[in-house]
Amino acid sequence: MAGGLGKTGQSVLGIDPGSRLCGYGVIDGNGKYLASGTIKMSPGKPLHIRLGELHEGLVSVIEEFSPGSASVEKVFFAKSVRAALTLGHARGVAMLALVNAGVEVFEYSPLEIKKAVTGHGKADKRQVQAMVRQILGLDFSPSPDGADALAMAICHRSRDEFRKVIRDAS
Amino acid sequence: MAGGLGKTGQSVLGIDPGSRLCGYGVIDGNGKYLASGTIKMSPGKPLHIRLGELHEGLVSVIEEFSPGSASVEKVFFAKSVRAALTLGHARGVAMLALVNAGVEVFEYSPLEIKKAVTGHGKADKRQVQAMVRQILGLDFSPSPDGADALAMAICHRSRDEFRKVIRDAS
Repeated sequence: MAGGLGKTGQSVLGIDPGSRLCGYGVIDGNGKYLASGTIKMSPGKPLHIRLGELHEGLVSVIEEFSPGSASVEKVFFAKSVRAALTLGHARGVAMLALVNAGVEVFEYSPLEIKKAVTGHGKADKRQVQAMVRQILGLDFSPSPDGADALAMAICHRSRDEFRKVIRDAS
Repeated sequence: MAGGLGKTGQSVLGIDPGSRLCGYGVIDGNGKYLASGTIKMSPGKPLHIRLGELHEGLVSVIEEFSPGSASVEKVFFAKSVRAALTLGHARGVAMLALVNAGVEVFEYSPLEIKKAVTGHGKADKRQVQAMVRQILGLDFSPSPDGADALAMAICHRSRDEFRKVIRDAS
Protein backbone atom coordinates (compact mmCIF):
# COMPACT_ATOMS: atom_id res chain seq x y z
CA MET A 1 0.00 0.00 0.00
CA ALA A 2 1.92 3.00 -1.26
CA GLY A 3 2.55 5.55 1.45
CA GLY A 4 1.11 3.33 4.21
CA LEU A 5 3.03 2.26 7.26
CA GLY A 6 2.58 -1.48 7.09
CA LYS A 7 1.50 -3.54 10.06
CA THR A 8 3.93 -3.02 12.92
CA GLY A 9 5.64 -5.85 14.77
CA GLN A 10 4.88 -8.37 12.05
CA SER A 11 7.38 -10.08 9.82
CA VAL A 12 8.40 -8.61 6.47
CA LEU A 13 8.61 -10.71 3.31
CA GLY A 14 10.93 -9.70 0.48
CA ILE A 15 10.31 -11.33 -2.89
CA ASP A 16 12.21 -11.32 -6.15
CA PRO A 17 9.93 -12.97 -8.70
CA GLY A 18 11.20 -14.24 -12.04
CA SER A 19 9.71 -16.53 -14.65
CA ARG A 20 11.84 -19.53 -13.58
CA LEU A 21 12.88 -18.77 -10.00
CA CYS A 22 11.48 -16.60 -7.23
CA GLY A 23 13.72 -15.65 -4.32
CA TYR A 24 12.14 -14.95 -0.97
CA GLY A 25 13.43 -13.76 2.39
CA VAL A 26 11.63 -13.19 5.69
CA ILE A 27 12.73 -11.10 8.68
CA ASP A 28 10.74 -10.65 11.88
CA GLY A 29 9.41 -7.43 13.43
CA ASN A 30 12.75 -6.89 15.20
CA GLY A 31 14.76 -7.30 12.02
CA LYS A 32 15.95 -10.84 12.81
CA TYR A 33 16.37 -13.43 10.07
CA LEU A 34 13.57 -15.98 9.84
CA ALA A 35 13.97 -17.71 6.48
CA SER A 36 15.08 -17.40 2.88
CA GLY A 37 15.03 -19.57 -0.18
CA THR A 38 14.04 -19.99 -3.78
CA ILE A 39 10.76 -21.17 -5.30
CA LYS A 40 11.62 -23.14 -8.42
CA MET A 41 9.26 -23.54 -11.34
CA SER A 42 9.38 -26.52 -13.69
CA PRO A 43 11.62 -25.65 -16.62
CA GLY A 44 10.06 -26.37 -20.01
CA LYS A 45 6.48 -26.36 -18.73
CA PRO A 46 4.04 -23.83 -20.25
CA LEU A 47 4.04 -20.41 -18.62
CA HIS A 48 0.57 -20.77 -17.07
CA ILE A 49 1.64 -23.99 -15.32
CA ARG A 50 4.79 -22.31 -13.98
CA LEU A 51 2.68 -19.39 -12.75
CA GLY A 52 0.49 -21.86 -10.84
CA GLU A 53 3.64 -23.33 -9.23
CA LEU A 54 4.92 -19.87 -8.31
CA HIS A 55 1.57 -18.99 -6.73
CA GLU A 56 1.44 -22.24 -4.75
CA GLY A 57 5.00 -21.72 -3.47
CA LEU A 58 4.31 -18.15 -2.40
CA VAL A 59 1.04 -19.07 -0.70
CA SER A 60 2.97 -21.65 1.40
CA VAL A 61 5.57 -19.07 2.44
CA ILE A 62 2.84 -16.53 3.30
CA GLU A 63 0.90 -19.14 5.32
CA GLU A 64 4.02 -20.15 7.24
CA PHE A 65 5.19 -16.66 8.21
CA SER A 66 2.02 -14.48 8.03
CA PRO A 67 3.96 -11.36 7.00
CA GLY A 68 2.28 -8.00 7.64
CA SER A 69 3.99 -6.42 4.66
CA ALA A 70 5.96 -7.38 1.60
CA SER A 71 8.70 -5.65 -0.30
CA VAL A 72 9.09 -6.08 -4.06
CA GLU A 73 11.67 -4.53 -6.34
CA LYS A 74 10.38 -1.97 -8.83
CA VAL A 75 11.26 -2.97 -12.37
CA PHE A 76 11.94 -0.36 -15.04
CA PHE A 77 14.05 -2.26 -17.53
CA ALA A 78 14.11 -5.57 -19.33
CA LYS A 79 16.32 -6.70 -22.18
CA SER A 80 13.32 -6.90 -24.52
CA VAL A 81 9.56 -6.48 -24.72
CA ARG A 82 9.29 -10.27 -24.68
CA ALA A 83 11.38 -10.52 -21.49
CA ALA A 84 9.30 -7.72 -19.92
CA LEU A 85 6.07 -9.54 -20.73
CA THR A 86 7.30 -12.79 -19.19
CA LEU A 87 8.66 -11.07 -16.09
CA GLY A 88 5.40 -9.11 -15.77
CA HIS A 89 3.40 -12.37 -15.61
CA ALA A 90 5.46 -13.59 -12.63
CA ARG A 91 5.31 -10.23 -10.83
CA GLY A 92 1.54 -10.04 -11.33
CA VAL A 93 1.05 -13.50 -9.83
CA ALA A 94 3.33 -12.66 -6.90
CA MET A 95 1.46 -9.42 -6.19
CA LEU A 96 -1.85 -11.22 -6.38
CA ALA A 97 -0.74 -13.84 -3.83
CA LEU A 98 0.17 -11.00 -1.46
CA VAL A 99 -3.00 -8.95 -2.02
CA ASN A 100 -5.27 -11.99 -1.64
CA ALA A 101 -3.58 -12.82 1.68
CA GLY A 102 -4.07 -9.25 2.95
CA VAL A 103 -0.33 -8.51 2.92
CA GLU A 104 0.50 -4.85 2.22
CA VAL A 105 2.70 -4.46 -0.84
CA PHE A 106 5.53 -1.92 -1.03
CA GLU A 107 7.77 -1.38 -4.03
CA TYR A 108 11.31 -0.02 -3.89
CA SER A 109 13.73 0.83 -6.67
CA PRO A 110 16.98 -1.18 -7.04
CA LEU A 111 18.83 2.00 -5.96
CA GLU A 112 16.80 2.31 -2.75
CA ILE A 113 17.39 -1.36 -1.93
CA LYS A 114 21.16 -1.20 -2.51
CA LYS A 115 21.42 2.02 -0.49
CA ALA A 116 19.48 0.49 2.40
CA VAL A 117 21.90 -2.44 2.77
CA THR A 118 25.25 -1.04 1.58
CA GLY A 119 24.90 2.73 2.03
CA HIS A 120 25.35 3.45 -1.67
CA GLY A 121 23.50 2.70 -4.90
CA LYS A 122 26.35 1.24 -6.91
CA ALA A 123 26.96 -1.95 -4.92
CA ASP A 124 27.24 -5.15 -6.94
CA LYS A 125 25.40 -8.40 -6.22
CA ARG A 126 28.23 -9.85 -4.09
CA GLN A 127 28.50 -6.74 -1.93
CA VAL A 128 24.74 -6.83 -1.33
CA GLN A 129 24.98 -10.49 -0.32
CA ALA A 130 27.90 -9.84 2.06
CA MET A 131 26.09 -6.91 3.71
CA VAL A 132 22.84 -8.86 4.07
CA ARG A 133 24.78 -11.60 5.85
CA GLN A 134 26.46 -9.06 8.13
CA ILE A 135 23.30 -7.03 8.91
CA LEU A 136 21.39 -10.19 9.85
CA GLY A 137 24.38 -11.73 11.71
CA LEU A 138 24.17 -14.97 9.73
CA ASP A 139 26.80 -17.69 10.05
CA PHE A 140 25.94 -18.97 6.58
CA SER A 141 25.46 -17.45 3.12
CA PRO A 142 21.85 -17.35 1.94
CA SER A 143 21.29 -18.28 -1.72
CA PRO A 144 21.85 -15.38 -4.14
CA ASP A 145 18.08 -15.11 -4.86
CA GLY A 146 17.33 -15.34 -1.15
CA ALA A 147 19.92 -12.65 -0.32
CA ASP A 148 18.36 -10.24 -2.85
CA ALA A 149 14.93 -10.86 -1.35
CA LEU A 150 16.30 -10.36 2.19
CA ALA A 151 17.81 -7.04 1.03
CA MET A 152 14.31 -5.97 -0.07
CA ALA A 153 12.86 -6.92 3.32
CA ILE A 154 15.68 -5.03 5.12
CA CYS A 155 15.06 -2.00 2.89
CA HIS A 156 11.36 -1.98 3.74
CA ARG A 157 11.97 -2.37 7.45
CA SER A 158 14.46 0.52 7.57
CA ARG A 159 12.06 2.74 5.60
CA ASP A 160 9.25 1.71 7.90
CA GLU A 161 11.28 2.47 11.04
CA PHE A 162 12.09 5.88 9.59
CA ARG A 163 8.41 6.54 8.88
CA LYS A 164 7.55 5.59 12.47
CA VAL A 165 10.14 8.02 13.89
CA ILE A 166 8.67 10.80 11.73
CA ARG A 167 5.14 9.86 12.77
CA ASP A 168 5.97 9.67 16.50
CA ALA A 169 7.77 13.01 16.34
CA SER A 170 4.86 14.81 14.71
CA MET B 1 -2.65 -26.95 -22.17
CA ALA B 2 -0.72 -26.71 -25.41
CA GLY B 3 -1.69 -29.43 -27.86
CA GLY B 4 -4.47 -30.79 -25.63
CA LEU B 5 -8.05 -31.12 -26.74
CA GLY B 6 -9.80 -29.26 -23.94
CA LYS B 7 -12.84 -30.65 -22.20
CA THR B 8 -15.54 -31.40 -24.77
CA GLY B 9 -19.10 -30.14 -24.49
CA GLN B 10 -18.18 -27.52 -21.96
CA SER B 11 -18.30 -23.79 -22.47
CA VAL B 12 -15.29 -21.86 -23.77
CA LEU B 13 -14.13 -18.61 -22.19
CA GLY B 14 -12.23 -16.05 -24.23
CA ILE B 15 -10.36 -13.37 -22.30
CA ASP B 16 -8.55 -10.22 -23.35
CA PRO B 17 -6.74 -8.98 -20.24
CA GLY B 18 -5.36 -5.44 -19.96
CA SER B 19 -4.15 -3.37 -17.04
CA ARG B 20 -7.37 -1.30 -16.86
CA LEU B 21 -9.99 -3.42 -18.61
CA CYS B 22 -10.41 -7.13 -19.26
CA GLY B 23 -12.85 -8.25 -21.94
CA TYR B 24 -14.47 -11.66 -21.61
CA GLY B 25 -16.79 -13.73 -23.76
CA VAL B 26 -18.36 -17.14 -23.19
CA ILE B 27 -19.84 -19.56 -25.75
CA ASP B 28 -21.33 -22.95 -24.93
CA GLY B 29 -20.25 -26.38 -26.16
CA ASN B 30 -22.43 -25.95 -29.28
CA GLY B 31 -20.94 -22.58 -30.14
CA LYS B 32 -23.91 -20.56 -28.89
CA TYR B 33 -23.44 -17.19 -27.20
CA LEU B 34 -23.72 -17.23 -23.42
CA ALA B 35 -22.26 -13.95 -22.18
CA SER B 36 -19.75 -11.20 -22.76
CA GLY B 37 -18.62 -8.10 -20.95
CA THR B 38 -15.79 -6.12 -19.48
CA ILE B 39 -14.17 -6.34 -16.06
CA LYS B 40 -13.18 -2.81 -15.05
CA MET B 41 -10.38 -2.05 -12.64
CA SER B 42 -10.32 1.11 -10.53
CA PRO B 43 -8.36 3.77 -12.42
CA GLY B 44 -5.68 5.45 -10.35
CA LYS B 45 -5.41 2.64 -7.80
CA PRO B 46 -2.02 0.92 -7.36
CA LEU B 47 -1.36 -1.95 -9.76
CA HIS B 48 -1.53 -4.67 -7.09
CA ILE B 49 -5.01 -3.47 -6.06
CA ARG B 50 -6.19 -3.50 -9.69
CA LEU B 51 -4.78 -7.00 -10.10
CA GLY B 52 -6.83 -8.11 -7.09
CA GLU B 53 -9.95 -6.64 -8.75
CA LEU B 54 -9.16 -8.36 -12.06
CA HIS B 55 -8.72 -11.69 -10.28
CA GLU B 56 -11.97 -11.31 -8.36
CA GLY B 57 -13.88 -10.42 -11.55
CA LEU B 58 -12.48 -13.39 -13.45
CA VAL B 59 -13.14 -15.80 -10.60
CA SER B 60 -16.84 -14.69 -10.67
CA VAL B 61 -17.09 -15.30 -14.43
CA ILE B 62 -15.39 -18.71 -14.09
CA GLU B 63 -17.69 -19.70 -11.20
CA GLU B 64 -20.79 -18.66 -13.17
CA PHE B 65 -19.99 -20.49 -16.41
CA SER B 66 -17.55 -23.27 -15.37
CA PRO B 67 -15.70 -23.21 -18.71
CA GLY B 68 -13.74 -26.32 -19.67
CA SER B 69 -11.19 -24.31 -21.61
CA ALA B 70 -10.08 -20.74 -22.08
CA SER B 71 -8.61 -18.92 -25.03
CA VAL B 72 -6.15 -16.06 -24.58
CA GLU B 73 -4.45 -14.00 -27.26
CA LYS B 74 -0.70 -14.47 -27.59
CA VAL B 75 1.13 -11.18 -27.18
CA PHE B 76 4.35 -10.45 -29.04
CA PHE B 77 4.43 -6.69 -29.11
CA ALA B 78 3.95 -3.75 -26.81
CA LYS B 79 4.71 -0.09 -27.39
CA SER B 80 7.40 -0.14 -24.69
CA VAL B 81 9.10 -2.33 -22.10
CA ARG B 82 7.06 -0.51 -19.46
CA ALA B 83 3.78 -1.26 -21.27
CA ALA B 84 4.85 -4.90 -21.70
CA LEU B 85 5.58 -5.22 -17.97
CA THR B 86 2.17 -3.81 -17.02
CA LEU B 87 0.31 -5.95 -19.56
CA GLY B 88 2.29 -8.99 -18.39
CA HIS B 89 1.06 -8.50 -14.81
CA ALA B 90 -2.58 -8.61 -15.95
CA ARG B 91 -2.04 -11.63 -18.23
CA GLY B 92 -0.26 -13.49 -15.42
CA VAL B 93 -3.14 -12.90 -13.02
CA ALA B 94 -5.68 -13.96 -15.67
CA MET B 95 -3.77 -17.18 -16.41
CA LEU B 96 -3.48 -17.94 -12.72
CA ALA B 97 -7.25 -17.55 -12.20
CA LEU B 98 -7.78 -20.08 -15.01
CA VAL B 99 -5.14 -22.57 -13.84
CA ASN B 100 -6.33 -22.45 -10.22
CA ALA B 101 -9.89 -23.20 -11.39
CA GLY B 102 -8.70 -26.18 -13.47
CA VAL B 103 -9.55 -24.49 -16.77
CA GLU B 104 -7.29 -25.52 -19.66
CA VAL B 105 -5.50 -22.54 -21.18
CA PHE B 106 -4.92 -22.20 -24.94
CA GLU B 107 -3.11 -19.33 -26.61
CA TYR B 108 -3.67 -18.16 -30.17
CA SER B 109 -1.91 -15.48 -32.20
CA PRO B 110 -3.87 -12.38 -33.32
CA LEU B 111 -3.56 -13.74 -36.90
CA GLU B 112 -5.12 -17.08 -35.96
CA ILE B 113 -8.00 -15.34 -34.17
CA LYS B 114 -8.75 -12.97 -37.06
CA LYS B 115 -8.57 -15.81 -39.57
CA ALA B 116 -10.95 -17.93 -37.50
CA VAL B 117 -13.68 -15.29 -37.52
CA THR B 118 -13.16 -13.39 -40.79
CA GLY B 119 -11.27 -15.86 -42.98
CA HIS B 120 -8.23 -13.63 -43.33
CA GLY B 121 -5.59 -12.20 -41.01
CA LYS B 122 -5.83 -8.54 -41.98
CA ALA B 123 -9.31 -7.80 -40.67
CA ASP B 124 -9.67 -4.65 -38.58
CA LYS B 125 -11.38 -4.42 -35.19
CA ARG B 126 -14.79 -3.45 -36.65
CA GLN B 127 -14.79 -6.33 -39.14
CA VAL B 128 -13.99 -8.75 -36.31
CA GLN B 129 -16.88 -7.32 -34.28
CA ALA B 130 -19.32 -7.57 -37.19
CA MET B 131 -18.33 -11.19 -37.93
CA VAL B 132 -18.56 -12.19 -34.26
CA ARG B 133 -22.09 -10.80 -34.20
CA GLN B 134 -22.99 -12.68 -37.40
CA ILE B 135 -21.38 -16.02 -36.39
CA LEU B 136 -23.18 -15.99 -33.04
CA GLY B 137 -26.47 -14.69 -34.55
CA LEU B 138 -26.70 -11.84 -32.08
CA ASP B 139 -29.35 -9.12 -32.39
CA PHE B 140 -27.14 -6.69 -30.47
CA SER B 141 -23.50 -5.57 -30.64
CA PRO B 142 -21.33 -6.85 -27.82
CA SER B 143 -18.90 -4.32 -26.34
CA PRO B 144 -15.62 -4.00 -28.31
CA ASP B 145 -13.64 -5.78 -25.52
CA GLY B 146 -16.33 -8.45 -25.27
CA ALA B 147 -16.33 -8.98 -29.06
CA ASP B 148 -12.55 -9.51 -29.09
CA ALA B 149 -12.87 -12.03 -26.29
CA LEU B 150 -15.73 -13.81 -28.08
CA ALA B 151 -13.52 -13.99 -31.22
CA MET B 152 -10.89 -15.81 -29.11
CA ALA B 153 -13.50 -18.27 -27.83
CA ILE B 154 -14.78 -18.87 -31.42
CA CYS B 155 -11.19 -19.39 -32.59
CA HIS B 156 -10.55 -21.99 -29.91
CA ARG B 157 -13.80 -23.81 -30.60
CA SER B 158 -13.13 -24.05 -34.35
CA ARG B 159 -9.59 -25.31 -33.69
CA ASP B 160 -10.93 -27.78 -31.19
CA GLU B 161 -13.58 -29.07 -33.61
CA PHE B 162 -10.86 -29.53 -36.23
CA ARG B 163 -8.69 -31.43 -33.74
CA LYS B 164 -11.64 -33.71 -32.94
CA VAL B 165 -12.25 -34.46 -36.62
CA ILE B 166 -8.58 -35.38 -37.02
CA ARG B 167 -8.68 -37.48 -33.86
CA ASP B 168 -11.89 -39.30 -34.85
CA ALA B 169 -10.52 -39.99 -38.35
CA SER B 170 -7.29 -41.47 -37.07
